[in-house]
Amino acid sequence: MSGNSIGKLFTVTTFGESHGLALGAIVDGCPPGLELSEDDLQADLNRRKPGQSKFTTQRKEADQVKILSGVFEGKTTGTAIGLVIENTDQRSKDYSNIKDIFRPAHADYTYSHKYGTRDYRGGGRSSARETAMRVAAGAIAKKYLQQVHGITVRGYLSQLGPVKVEKVDWNIVNENPFFCPDADKIPAMEAYMKSLKGNSVGAKITVVASGVKPGLGEPIFDRLDAEIAHSLMSINAVKGIEIGAGFDSVEQLGTEHRDEITSDGFTSNNAGGILGGISTGQDIVAHLALKPTSSLSIPGQSINTQGEPVEVVTKGRHDPCVGIRATPIAEAMLAITLMDHLMRDRGQNAEVQHAIPDVSKS
Amino acid sequence: MSGNSIGKLFTVTTFGESHGLALGAIVDGCPPGLELSEDDLQADLNRRKPGQSKFTTQRKEADQVKILSGVFEGKTTGTAIGLVIENTDQRSKDYSNIKDIFRPAHADYTYSHKYGTRDYRGGGRSSARETAMRVAAGAIAKKYLQQVHGITVRGYLSQLGPVKVEKVDWNIVNENPFFCPDADKIPAMEAYMKSLKGNSVGAKITVVASGVKPGLGEPIFDRLDAEIAHSLMSINAVKGIEIGAGFDSVEQLGTEHRDEITSDGFTSNNAGGILGGISTGQDIVAHLALKPTSSLSIPGQSINTQGEPVEVVTKGRHDPCVGIRATPIAEAMLAITLMDHLMRDRGQNAEVQHAIPDVSKS
Amino acid sequence: MSGNSIGKLFTVTTFGESHGLALGAIVDGCPPGLELSEDDLQADLNRRKPGQSKFTTQRKEADQVKILSGVFEGKTTGTAIGLVIENTDQRSKDYSNIKDIFRPAHADYTYSHKYGTRDYRGGGRSSARETAMRVAAGAIAKKYLQQVHGITVRGYLSQLGPVKVEKVDWNIVNENPFFCPDADKIPAMEAYMKSLKGNSVGAKITVVASGVKPGLGEPIFDRLDAEIAHSLMSINAVKGIEIGAGFDSVEQLGTEHRDEITSDGFTSNNAGGILGGISTGQDIVAHLALKPTSSLSIPGQSINTQGEPVEVVTKGRHDPCVGIRATPIAEAMLAITLMDHLMRDRGQNAEVQHAIPDVSKS
Amino acid sequence: MSGNSIGKLFTVTTFGESHGLALGAIVDGCPPGLELSEDDLQADLNRRKPGQSKFTTQRKEADQVKILSGVFEGKTTGTAIGLVIENTDQRSKDYSNIKDIFRPAHADYTYSHKYGTRDYRGGGRSSARETAMRVAAGAIAKKYLQQVHGITVRGYLSQLGPVKVEKVDWNIVNENPFFCPDADKIPAMEAYMKSLKGNSVGAKITVVASGVKPGLGEPIFDRLDAEIAHSLMSINAVKGIEIGAGFDSVEQLGTEHRDEITSDGFTSNNAGGILGGISTGQDIVAHLALKPTSSLSIPGQSINTQGEPVEVVTKGRHDPCVGIRATPIAEAMLAITLMDHLMRDRGQNAEVQHAIPDVSKS
Repeated sequence: MSGNSIGKLFTVTTFGESHGLALGAIVDGCPPGLELSEDDLQADLNRRKPGQSKFTTQRKEADQVKILSGVFEGKTTGTAIGLVIENTDQRSKDYSNIKDIFRPAHADYTYSHKYGTRDYRGGGRSSARETAMRVAAGAIAKKYLQQVHGITVRGYLSQLGPVKVEKVDWNIVNENPFFCPDADKIPAMEAYMKSLKGNSVGAKITVVASGVKPGLGEPIFDRLDAEIAHSLMSINAVKGIEIGAGFDSVEQLGTEHRDEITSDGFTSNNAGGILGGISTGQDIVAHLALKPTSSLSIPGQSINTQGEPVEVVTKGRHDPCVGIRATPIAEAMLAITLMDHLMRDRGQNAEVQHAIPDVSKS
Repeated sequence: MSGNSIGKLFTVTTFGESHGLALGAIVDGCPPGLELSEDDLQADLNRRKPGQSKFTTQRKEADQVKILSGVFEGKTTGTAIGLVIENTDQRSKDYSNIKDIFRPAHADYTYSHKYGTRDYRGGGRSSARETAMRVAAGAIAKKYLQQVHGITVRGYLSQLGPVKVEKVDWNIVNENPFFCPDADKIPAMEAYMKSLKGNSVGAKITVVASGVKPGLGEPIFDRLDAEIAHSLMSINAVKGIEIGAGFDSVEQLGTEHRDEITSDGFTSNNAGGILGGISTGQDIVAHLALKPTSSLSIPGQSINTQGEPVEVVTKGRHDPCVGIRATPIAEAMLAITLMDHLMRDRGQNAEVQHAIPDVSKS
Repeated sequence: MSGNSIGKLFTVTTFGESHGLALGAIVDGCPPGLELSEDDLQADLNRRKPGQSKFTTQRKEADQVKILSGVFEGKTTGTAIGLVIENTDQRSKDYSNIKDIFRPAHADYTYSHKYGTRDYRGGGRSSARETAMRVAAGAIAKKYLQQVHGITVRGYLSQLGPVKVEKVDWNIVNENPFFCPDADKIPAMEAYMKSLKGNSVGAKITVVASGVKPGLGEPIFDRLDAEIAHSLMSINAVKGIEIGAGFDSVEQLGTEHRDEITSDGFTSNNAGGILGGISTGQDIVAHLALKPTSSLSIPGQSINTQGEPVEVVTKGRHDPCVGIRATPIAEAMLAITLMDHLMRDRGQNAEVQHAIPDVSKS
Repeated sequence: MSGNSIGKLFTVTTFGESHGLALGAIVDGCPPGLELSEDDLQADLNRRKPGQSKFTTQRKEADQVKILSGVFEGKTTGTAIGLVIENTDQRSKDYSNIKDIFRPAHADYTYSHKYGTRDYRGGGRSSARETAMRVAAGAIAKKYLQQVHGITVRGYLSQLGPVKVEKVDWNIVNENPFFCPDADKIPAMEAYMKSLKGNSVGAKITVVASGVKPGLGEPIFDRLDAEIAHSLMSINAVKGIEIGAGFDSVEQLGTEHRDEITSDGFTSNNAGGILGGISTGQDIVAHLALKPTSSLSIPGQSINTQGEPVEVVTKGRHDPCVGIRATPIAEAMLAITLMDHLMRDRGQNAEVQHAIPDVSKS
């Protein structure tokens, strides 16, 4: 039953339930010498934090992270980094209405089957609250990637329900409540969210890593794309992953799909920066499909723990589109996986002398 | 650089290059007492084998598997199962035309960057020939799942280029060269393949596991869907993975997507049989996007190992749609991942007494 | 650089420096339904805690553990258990005397070489203070082993410097400051400790697991004895591990060493309860050699970080024999490894029907 | 039940039974560019091979290894290396005498309990024949360590029954049938072996790695000494492991044990080259205790699979001291573990700039 770790050499292990005392993580494998403070982590935590706009849940969570170990005199020491966020919003709420029922599309039914028990307070371990620690751990990876390898990991909301983004202006992504990169689409997104009226909707997120050198990834089974798929699919509510052209590849001809190579670089990036499970040096591009929020105030049918039919209505404060706040989470997971592969790869260091032309430099 | 294993308790490790002496695998963690012979593996290997129809490569590969260990008196002993397939089609071919160039959309460029060298004969380790051992190992998992747990793993081609399957008749899947489950679409597929004339096309595969009990999967990071995504994305040419509704979730409303629960079972399966990373007891359904074959007789531009521009034309015998033969490979990978999770899960045995209603039984 | 986890299915990951804010651990893979409270962990923590007698360090550490997750309504839920102990004895001490020198027999020199930096306050991560979290995590394993499988894990000091234990009375082990099982030897131990006068001495610990059924262990490389050796050798100051007869085997004849089998059980236990890497059903017996404490008030020669010769004298409060407090740590590590193997083993459950005679029952 | 792999980044997975068709291994994680031929492996295999002198078993096993993948144009490619040795000495022997009995000190009883079945031909998977693949895989590690890092791994027999070696002359180790480094002791060893007359005896092996730089090892749990203990204890018949002073540490005073440091190096090596789980730059020294061979022609009592008492007499060709042939096996395992740690360590490359004095260079 142990599945709370990810990464082989850069390993993130998390704990914590939605309404427990605290969330925490151990980040194992960060090289020494990286300047690191709680502020570095807090920035991304604040991007994920609920209650930042009228389009996300109004719950208040301080999400104040503490670094308990692994940093000395302002720099990482190479030893395990312990992180903790105390849960401050533990209202002594009455959970009797959900204690004995299985909310549709939630993990209530499956956790009960697996464990024979569950912490029903706010979803317990299956709550998306758990993703706060991913963001905290991912912030360490993002900083290392940026500072030591010049790799930038960032993301945006590429589709909200039927509203599709048409252009990407990185400058505005963090300036609107949707992580939307297309200023022209923000009004449509706002209007769409208002129209939901108690219903919820899915979303599509795109994450991009720039500056990854060619040669990262571990065929056959630990290919970079396979591990990115693992990492991103492990995020709550994710139902699909694409690398580069993704499902568009199905209808593409070979001549359309193949990214030709010139001395000045690749002519296109249908590969999404990965060929044969190894980075090409182009941007690594992945898309995630997120399902609509499962907690709805519109009644749905289900059963209780006795197997009897019940009507479920979720009260309280929930995101109408969980996809919106997923952007920093997806960035964090991509960063964690890249970091792990950087640590695993011996081709990135002096042992292998590359006399191979590197068109990504051009 | 070690990435040739998959699975934590049911572990498959493979070796072998396209034109090396042999391919092989070690299957570690198969419980004792399973009746197993080479014929059990050969059946699926023959489904994957090239040269079975005019729509796949005409290369002849016997793909005759030998079991070297782990089976005694016709049954598995619980120890490591060694498998080997000798390569019989090692034509002493002239590879001078591809030795020094990077074929577009192939792994030539990335392998060269990672390793500083590559076995250029037929793609070496990056060749899809490697997938033969996945099919052999997967056949062991499929047999165990079927015999011990009553789980059936099977797949079909759901889309070939623009031709989409509209109905699923499992009885015909293995009776046509496309693994197509819709008899009405076979003529269109044949016609489309003939129209390709040296070009290639992508495909979509669907794999389904029936009979999985609720409770399988290891949150948070080793969720069943995350590990299925890893497993399927590790197959050559795969660029996208969906679980259940997949990317359709993006535009779904919460009320559409949520699978309501009744005493007679779930009313739909947008979840694809997985909630919170744990099986629901419904069919587990995954879709894979496969890119078009990269080896084309239509010239494309690239560079050579000196960085100079070259024109690439691939000669020889290649599948115009690698997706076609991918159906047994995808089944194998899904089976391997389910098998691994069965071994890891303690909830499937007597330690946890489930008094929870199981609607999948109804 | 990630090495802070142990166990494959029952996985313990720790963090924390001697003088950091806190120590912590994540215990991943404990089955649901186990009654667990902080008191269960505190009992063993108190056995390890310094300042319990005049023969151990007089430092005061409250070592008060908190369970942050994974327990709900008094029982484990099957999800990750987060543990933390705040460091209360963080005196704002002057470390300038050891900051720039490498104390002999300590990890100062090696940590500096590995990481290029080190937290010099009290040894940082290399301090035995880290073992508190092992004891906390091990207490969970010990309780599960006892309650669910009837397995008892316990240990004693079998030798202190030249004073060798000659008989084992489990009833007195926790009733004296040495974990000594032989009442007749306690006066000699006391006298020997007093004679040390600033010097330190090594010790030998014996740990025993009773009630393990035959069949536990995972050949070839994950043999039970190999993983016990790993687990015990990972404890600070341990320099040797024996299973059963250990180094006495070297001079034994085959007829002496072999444990013959009768219908009433084995006639001896030179194997230490493990044959071929798998438990026999007899007591599992392991011995550990612990080196003398490295912190001495008797001057020793070393170099500083500039490579210049220096004289090192350690001031402050240190155990003259680290082996004494190691008994609960060794028990914890043995319990963690047995727990992990119980989780990994499929032969312990209903899938394999044992018709094999079990002489351990007689 | 999967335990047939060792190593995290340099991973060796083996298969094969004593009397099966073949033994094999996959060596995953060897960097590219290493010149490698079957001869490199055969040299060590021949040192381990039985029938080399009158003091080892007279069974003939060709132990001819084949490299099936991972090497191209005489050099490793960085991909998985497949190895196989066909079993040529599969006499169609009558095993009815051991089929239904549990030989004392063998793994018959424990394998039967674990798996509910066993391949009784010559011990099946539990036979020391399995160690041939360790030697083959270890030879790759040894060559890499030597050529790329200047690390030499070698071993000798330090004690045979009561005969203890008193000096180490590396030049004669491979020139006598005992791997004995002390010419004066060879006659006593010969005489002792002749005196055994059907009985067997234990042995002690010492392995040494020279040239390891300071900084190798991954605290806390993956300490270098802990993983060496794991690796060496996984060898058949091993019952004890010591690092450096080992069990002598128990009676040492702190002033005796501590290895003081001078600008010219350490003054002694009680640490065995490892402090805090990390290499010091001194020789890494480990000792192994091996139990006497279990197969004896002197009758012993046991039970059969029905639980009835039986007398066991082992016929056939067996080593009277398995320890003798264990020297190359222990070298192989030490080399595999060092190789794995070299691959895992980031401190060995340019990322960490060591300004720390390195006394091992002096």
